[in-house]
Amino acid sequence: MSNKGEVKFIGVVESSGELSRVKIFPEFCVGLEGLNNFSHITILYWFHLRDNEKERRTLRVVPRRHTRNVKVGVFACRSPSRPNPIGLCVAKLAKVEDCILTVKGLDALEGSPIIDIKPYIPRADSIPDAQVPEWTSRGPRT
Amino acid sequence: MSNKGEVKFIGVVESSGELSRVKIFPEFCVGLEGLNNFSHITILYWFHLRDNEKERRTLRVVPRRHTRNVKVGVFACRSPSRPNPIGLCVAKLAKVEDCILTVKGLDALEGSPIIDIKPYIPRADSIPDAQVPEWTSRGPRT
Repeated sequence: MSNKGEVKFIGVVESSGELSRVKIFPEFCVGLEGLNNFSHITILYWFHLRDNEKERRTLRVVPRRHTRNVKVGVFACRSPSRPNPIGLCVAKLAKVEDCILTVKGLDALEGSPIIDIKPYIPRADSIPDAQVPEWTSRGPRT
Repeated sequence: MSNKGEVKFIGVVESSGELSRVKIFPEFCVGLEGLNNFSHITILYWFHLRDNEKERRTLRVVPRRHTRNVKVGVFACRSPSRPNPIGLCVAKLAKVEDCILTVKGLDALEGSPIIDIKPYIPRADSIPDAQVPEWTSRGPRT
């Protein structure tokens, strides 16, 4: 088995803020057909500023929301420093216009490449009563 | 800007069923520290059987749950044929033992490489009332 794969960037975060603009590159734009029937989407993006050997070798971090100086594994928090610099964010889809998505609640920086968009489907994706440790309740959502 | 990135496989689905076994490779295992404090996780995996040019050029499909013969963009459904063969599944974490996760509800096939594990945090990830088109309510969850 191969030990790695290649991701193509399918778009980019053109602007970020309360509302963010995500541009899907023209050659992938047909893939958005029907997305406007969903109110929310999951956006997978690339932490491009962390795509270097040092950040990708990081396996434990102190989460910024942790009040104590406790290290946690990167797979047990949402650290952008991790073996694969993939960010995941559920966002409200405000508008789809041509190849531009306007979304609310995206935590990606301007310039972040997009690697996938998935429709948010509550019966698969929503677990309101999932249990979490106390430190995750502080600070920003992601 | 580069137009692609590299993902390293951090583990593999060793067995799949009602309970699935996910093995994280030893060199990444430290990254699991603290994961046992979460009841659910999001698993990003690689649709390895679809990692070829034809499947990755696919932009529209007929979702298997659709009752009519209607094509939908791959970013508006969970098709494994898509530009980046990344699968996303929220699963219940039954057990963490050494480098092995036992999870419930994982839809990945045996042999699928794992590319990331993220803790499921309801206040970021759970949108119980997200709107979806009617066809998504049929068949399996994902």
